[in-house]
Amino acid sequence: MTDRITRLNTTQSDFDSALAQLLAWDDSVDHQVNESVRHILHEVKTRGDAAVLEFTAKFDRLDVGSMAELEMDKSRLQAALDRIPQDQREGLEKAAERIRDYHERQNQQSWQYQDEDGTVLGQKVTPLDRAGLYVPGGKAAYPSSVLMNAIPAKVAGVSEVIMVVPTPDGVVNDMVLAAAAIAGVDRVFTIGGAQAVAALAYGTDTVPSVDKIVGPGNIFVATAKREVFGVVGIDMIAGPSEILVICDGKTDPDWIAMDLFSQAEHDEQAQSILVSPDADFLDAVEASINNLLPTMEREEIIRTSMLGRGALIQVADLKEAAEVSNRIAPEHLELSVEDPQAMLDDIRHAGAIFMGRHTAEALGDYCAGPNHVLPTSGTARFSSPLGVYDFQKRSSLIGFTAQGADRMGRVASVLARGEGLTAHARSAEYRINE
Amino acid sequence: MTDRITRLNTTQSDFDSALAQLLAWDDSVDHQVNESVRHILHEVKTRGDAAVLEFTAKFDRLDVGSMAELEMDKSRLQAALDRIPQDQREGLEKAAERIRDYHERQNQQSWQYQDEDGTVLGQKVTPLDRAGLYVPGGKAAYPSSVLMNAIPAKVAGVSEVIMVVPTPDGVVNDMVLAAAAIAGVDRVFTIGGAQAVAALAYGTDTVPSVDKIVGPGNIFVATAKREVFGVVGIDMIAGPSEILVICDGKTDPDWIAMDLFSQAEHDEQAQSILVSPDADFLDAVEASINNLLPTMEREEIIRTSMLGRGALIQVADLKEAAEVSNRIAPEHLELSVEDPQAMLDDIRHAGAIFMGRHTAEALGDYCAGPNHVLPTSGTARFSSPLGVYDFQKRSSLIGFTAQGADRMGRVASVLARGEGLTAHARSAEYRINE
Repeated sequence: MTDRITRLNTTQSDFDSALAQLLAWDDSVDHQVNESVRHILHEVKTRGDAAVLEFTAKFDRLDVGSMAELEMDKSRLQAALDRIPQDQREGLEKAAERIRDYHERQNQQSWQYQDEDGTVLGQKVTPLDRAGLYVPGGKAAYPSSVLMNAIPAKVAGVSEVIMVVPTPDGVVNDMVLAAAAIAGVDRVFTIGGAQAVAALAYGTDTVPSVDKIVGPGNIFVATAKREVFGVVGIDMIAGPSEILVICDGKTDPDWIAMDLFSQAEHDEQAQSILVSPDADFLDAVEASINNLLPTMEREEIIRTSMLGRGALIQVADLKEAAEVSNRIAPEHLELSVEDPQAMLDDIRHAGAIFMGRHTAEALGDYCAGPNHVLPTSGTARFSSPLGVYDFQKRSSLIGFTAQGADRMGRVASVLARGEGLTAHARSAEYRINE
Repeated sequence: MTDRITRLNTTQSDFDSALAQLLAWDDSVDHQVNESVRHILHEVKTRGDAAVLEFTAKFDRLDVGSMAELEMDKSRLQAALDRIPQDQREGLEKAAERIRDYHERQNQQSWQYQDEDGTVLGQKVTPLDRAGLYVPGGKAAYPSSVLMNAIPAKVAGVSEVIMVVPTPDGVVNDMVLAAAAIAGVDRVFTIGGAQAVAALAYGTDTVPSVDKIVGPGNIFVATAKREVFGVVGIDMIAGPSEILVICDGKTDPDWIAMDLFSQAEHDEQAQSILVSPDADFLDAVEASINNLLPTMEREEIIRTSMLGRGALIQVADLKEAAEVSNRIAPEHLELSVEDPQAMLDDIRHAGAIFMGRHTAEALGDYCAGPNHVLPTSGTARFSSPLGVYDFQKRSSLIGFTAQGADRMGRVASVLARGEGLTAHARSAEYRINE
C-alpha cells in the first residue's frame, strides 16, 4: 500500500467540506441503461410471456419452449434444502428463526375508538396480497437476502411471495433455493433482470402481478424498479454499503480493522469509516489494516474501497463522534465503546446500531434478527430498515353517528365553503339536522 | 346532458376489460416539463438563493432584493389568524384538534428486549429533524391541506416544519396562513414551484435543507419531488382524486349524487364510481345527478368528470361490491349500507373507509380526524394514508453479550463463508471464544 487511508480531524478548518467530499456519491443515471430498461419494460408489458422468454434466452442463455419451464417446483427447493451441508442448513434455520422472532414484534394491529358522539375512528391494517422478491443470481448469490426479504413479508401476512432469480446458463445456487424453502416462498421463477421486474409489475399469463417488489439487483434491476414505482410499490434503491465505527480506543484494533473490511469487501464503492477521540488508536487500526489486508481473499476490492472511500476521523470526544455520525446518518453504526446504551440518546440517524465490542456488524447481516436491508447514502435521515410494516398498509376508518355528522358537518361546511368546494359543503350539509 | 354516465354490470361478458378501461389513467411524463424542472433544480443546487430569487421573479412576478424578504414572519401568520372570520377560525381550530387527537394514536414507541443470552434487540423510533411542506398558492389554496400535512409532522416530533407557499403577484391567502399558525409551522417562505422544492431539498444560504418534502402541487412540483427523491424523502405523487361509493340502495339518492360530486368537483380527471346491487337505485342516483348538476357552482368540471371517468356499476350483492372495490383499491371508499362494520372484513384495499349513511366523504376531508392525504390510482394496494409514521424512522438495535456473540458468531461464520464473504466471517469469528 503506497497510498494511505484518508485521515480527518474535526479540528481542521476545512473539516466540513472534507467530510462532504468524502461522502459525495455520484448516483447519476446512465441514459443508455435507462433506454434499454424502458424498452424491456415496454416489451414485457405489451407482449408478456413471449417477451420474457426472448430476453431470458438472450441475457441468461436459457432456451426453453414455454414460461412453465421457467417456474421452479417447490420440490426443487426442498431438494436443495436436503442437499446442502448440514451446518449451512442449521445456520439458515437458526437465522430464519431469529429473524422471524424479531420481525413478529413489528406486527401492527388495527385499532378503533369512539369519540363523545359515538363516532368511530380507527385504522385498519392489512397485508399486501402479493409481494415479489428479486434475488440476484450467478456469482453474487446471497441466501441471507432471501431470508431478510421473504420472512418479513410472510410475518406481515402476505399470502403469496413470488421470487424471481436468474439462472444464467442454468446455474442455480442451492443455498438460495434452500433459503427460499425455509422462508416459505410460494412460487419461484428463474428469470432476472429488468424483464423479471416487468413481469412482476405488469403480470403475464404465467407470472402474476404483485403489489410490491423488494430485493437487491444490479443497475438494470434498480432502474427497472424505479421505473415501475407507482404501478407497484418498491423498497428502497440501495446505494453502496457503508459502516461507521465509533470506538473509544479500547477495542482490539484487529477487530475494528476487520469490521471495516466486512463492508469494504462488498464492493469498491463501499464506505468504511472509523471515528475515535484516540489518535494512537487510529494509528493502531491503520497498522492492523495494513497487516491484515494481504491476508484477505477479497484484498483488491477491500484495498480500493478503503483507499478510495474509507477514512479515519479524529474527534474531541464521544459526544462529537455522535454528532459526526448524525451528519453521516450511516447504514451501519457500530458503537464499540464501554457503555453504548449511554450513547443511544445522542444518535438520531442510523439504519442499524451495533452496540458494544462484541457486536460485529457481520452478526447483523446474518442472524441477529433485525433486517439487513437498511437505508444507505444518508437516507437513514428519513427512512427505516426493511420490515413487516413494508408489507402492510393502513386504511383509515371513519364512521359518523347522526349526531356526530350533524356537529362536524357544520365545521366541514364552513371550511369547504372557505375553499370554494361547494359540493363538499353540500354533501356534508345533507347530514346536518335542520 | 346529452351523453349518459357509463353504466356497467358485473354480469356483462366484457366487464373485466370495461372496468380496466374505466380505471386506466395515463400518467406518462411530459419531457418538456422534465427538462424544465431539471434545469431549475440544477440552478438552485449550484447557485442557491440567487437562482431562487430569479425564478420567483420570473414565475411569481415577485421582485425582491433578498431571500430574507421572502420569509414570512410568524407574526404575519398570527395576524392572519386574528383577521379571518370567526367561524372559519373556529372551524380550523376544531379540525386541528381532531386531527391532532387522531394522529397522536399513531405515535410509535421504541422498544428493546433481551434474548436468552442477554443480547439486546430492539427498534429505536426517532422523528425526522426537518420536514418541508409544499402548499399550493393562488386560486387553489387549501388550508385543510396545511393542517393535514403539518400536524402529523409536529405530532411525530419533527423539530422544524418549513412551509413554502408561492404568492404569485404577492397574493396571499389568509386562511392558509391561519392554518399554518394553528398547526405550529415553524418557518414560512413565499416561494413555490420546482425552485421551492429544490431549495428545500438542497438547502440554500437562507432556506435550510429538509429531510422530507410533503404536500400537493402542480406537475412542476410533482416532477421536482420525484427528481429529488433519494436526496430527501417525499410523500406519494398523487394522481387524480377518486371515490367509490358502495350503497345498498337505501340512502337518499341526492346524498349519494352529492358525495360523487364532491370528488368530481376537484378536477376533470377525478373519478367517482357508485356500486350497488339495486338497478332502480342506480337509476334514481342518475336522475339525482341530472337534477343537481345545474345547481352546482363547479358544474362544468363535475359534468366532465362524471361523463368522462364516472360510472354506475351494478353488482349481484354487497359481497361482490367488495370484490369490485378490492380490484379498484379506491382512495376513498364510502360504505353507505346498513351494517358497514360487517363489510369491513371483506375490504382489503382502500385509502380511507367511510362507514354508514351519515359519513359523507367530505367530513373526512376536513375534520373527522384521519388524514385526507391518501393513496390514489390503486396504490392503496400497497400504501397508506399520510401519517405520523411518515415523519418518523426506525433504527434497529443490536447489542450482543460475549456469550451471544460466541453462539451466533458461529452461525454468521458458516453463512458468510457460504456466501464467500470472508471478512464478514473473520469479523464474527474474532468474537468466538476459542
